[in-house]
Amino acid sequence: MRRTSRDIRVANRFEVMRHIIASATVSRQQVAGLTGLSFATVANLVGELLELGLLVEVGYQDSGGGRPRGLIAVNPAGGVLVGVDVAETYVHVEVFDPALTVLASVEEALHPDEARPEQVVAHILSSLRGALARAGAPHERVLGVGVSVPGQVDREGGVSVFAPNWDWHDVPLRGMLAASLDLPLYLDNPLRACAVAELWFGAGRGRDDVAVVNLGTGVGAGFVFGGALHRGATNSAGEWGHTTLVLDGRPCHCGSRGCVEAYVGAPGIMQNLRDLAPDSAMLHPQDQTATIRALAEGIAAGDPVAVKALAESARYLGVAIADLINLVNPEVVVLSSWVAGLLGEPLLAEVRAVAAERALTRPLAAAEITLCGIAGNPVSLGAATFALEQCLAGIGSRA
Amino acid sequence: MRRTSRDIRVANRFEVMRHIIASATVSRQQVAGLTGLSFATVANLVGELLELGLLVEVGYQDSGGGRPRGLIAVNPAGGVLVGVDVAETYVHVEVFDPALTVLASVEEALHPDEARPEQVVAHILSSLRGALARAGAPHERVLGVGVSVPGQVDREGGVSVFAPNWDWHDVPLRGMLAASLDLPLYLDNPLRACAVAELWFGAGRGRDDVAVVNLGTGVGAGFVFGGALHRGATNSAGEWGHTTLVLDGRPCHCGSRGCVEAYVGAPGIMQNLRDLAPDSAMLHPQDQTATIRALAEGIAAGDPVAVKALAESARYLGVAIADLINLVNPEVVVLSSWVAGLLGEPLLAEVRAVAAERALTRPLAAAEITLCGIAGNPVSLGAATFALEQCLAGIGSRA
Repeated sequence: MRRTSRDIRVANRFEVMRHIIASATVSRQQVAGLTGLSFATVANLVGELLELGLLVEVGYQDSGGGRPRGLIAVNPAGGVLVGVDVAETYVHVEVFDPALTVLASVEEALHPDEARPEQVVAHILSSLRGALARAGAPHERVLGVGVSVPGQVDREGGVSVFAPNWDWHDVPLRGMLAASLDLPLYLDNPLRACAVAELWFGAGRGRDDVAVVNLGTGVGAGFVFGGALHRGATNSAGEWGHTTLVLDGRPCHCGSRGCVEAYVGAPGIMQNLRDLAPDSAMLHPQDQTATIRALAEGIAAGDPVAVKALAESARYLGVAIADLINLVNPEVVVLSSWVAGLLGEPLLAEVRAVAAERALTRPLAAAEITLCGIAGNPVSLGAATFALEQCLAGIGSRA
Repeated sequence: MRRTSRDIRVANRFEVMRHIIASATVSRQQVAGLTGLSFATVANLVGELLELGLLVEVGYQDSGGGRPRGLIAVNPAGGVLVGVDVAETYVHVEVFDPALTVLASVEEALHPDEARPEQVVAHILSSLRGALARAGAPHERVLGVGVSVPGQVDREGGVSVFAPNWDWHDVPLRGMLAASLDLPLYLDNPLRACAVAELWFGAGRGRDDVAVVNLGTGVGAGFVFGGALHRGATNSAGEWGHTTLVLDGRPCHCGSRGCVEAYVGAPGIMQNLRDLAPDSAMLHPQDQTATIRALAEGIAAGDPVAVKALAESARYLGVAIADLINLVNPEVVVLSSWVAGLLGEPLLAEVRAVAAERALTRPLAAAEITLCGIAGNPVSLGAATFALEQCLAGIGSRA
């Protein structure tokens, strides 16, 4: 891929916007210092963002005798961004200002019998309208809507190519939404959304090589390589959940056997618990969330079965994370999504111990393993960040 | 990582040099057409390369009535590049002209009792001097020497951090060579060398996302992501040989168990054969090369044990390659190094069949699986290419 000066310009625009979001109020001179870009470049990029209304001038800073320096900030009235996290069990919509501060959110539960595309689309539309109403944001103020759906996504086409937990194949989700919603829509999956959220707002900030491991019903990894999202040839990269951990092991719903997901996805962790204690009261056969929550409570209470089920699950997860460390040599591995959120520090401690036994010394020493530190829902945040990136990337290509 | 206009300039210089090498004789206008760069940019970059002596003007092309167009080519007298492939069983040195055409080569065997750093260094020095003498190239014409050693390498420090098959730890190889050799020296490993060779001269040309799988005594992967080598945080990426295929499986010399390398490295393949037929005449316990060669001959002759040993080895390898396809979503997976060379098409056919069963549909459809098509030794070629890249990257930063 030949990089053009336009690519550089877009990357610099992202960098400037990231620093202004992080700094709240800042001068162009400070942004130049933070980014290493020239003052002229920063002034030029800031000019574009002011013109678009994403930034505002907010006063002057005394520069010690010289001409006072203009201060800039993200314009809270510059429009809104919407992030939609469609998961197996819920639809969660958040409305953000251009600094990615949450203005309002709505969540609707998805029942197990609501797996058909039109049912999911109806939930997306109603929760999105509800969230915009709560934020007091009319449609014309929406800069863009990012939608994350599980599984493999054709981003350009706006198609959910394959969502294994729902058995979706080639569902034209963007088209279905666009029929009722005249807004810029961007489709991607939670692996990519979490990775971009970490890159802009989390443990990935300022990092070149990052692996964000999503632990939910399904599992997967989002990668940042060389400071940019790694998508692969068909936006399918990161299917770590469907790499082999135990040759000829447990059957996986992908059709293969012994996949990482079969051991460390929520149903896999439930199976680990069932193998140890088939009659455990922690098991809620029809409710993954209740089971993982009961397991977390058991661990906190020192219940030996819970502690053992955690150790067993962390053994699988630690080996699979050591594999990632050996293979891609990241600076940081972030454990994200709801299973990591519920099992938290005890899971992290066990995983670190197993990975330390299994990874090679040099890549291990370089890899921080951490829990996701983003407040709120990183998938919605990441989906909205995609919408912001598209806004920024589009500057200059408009009429 | 913020990319600068200097990075772009270096990347464009690589691109222009690659196209001129591939085209033999070409005009600036043609290079502009091939690369998509502007004529002015190409003229500027070509000017620098002419000044450095890497290119020469070779005449004029009629432009159909207009001013004749100057033709350029790589300057065969522009200096020499040296690529050194240090493997467990040999040191192979090749001397190249700036178009990476081989001028001379020397190979010295490394006996199993010659694993100490000073022994290996002595072989590198003697074969390098021998190869330069054969090429008729005095030291002052050497533009740079790339050295590939197995294991983990600190490229900046020129240190072999860990070479498991020799039990090397923190061997300052560049310093040891520099004590006897006053030439620009660049150290890296065969994973990186094979990947850069494929990127410049093989199946990776013009591709963004490539996995080059090295099958030798050790195994590993070299990655190209977004058109550039992926090194990771500490130049350790690609330790695919030390990712888990069979949890708690065969012991691996890295200290872990069930690693890919324990099943598909040459000793692993020998073990697969031994498991099937402990007394097979194909087994040469002290000679990996002889065993793999005997296996290849057995396969060609339709020997049922050989065919079964291939199928078993390809089952492990195919699953491990399916894992790579699911994880990084490459456009092409290249099977490289001597085991892939000896087992060739029969191995490729089996691996393709297994990967097709195990990989997810979308990334599988995008991934071509192929044998290394580079004539000669891709590791020496890649090592010399590193030296060329350093030459090109250094333009303009000199006095």
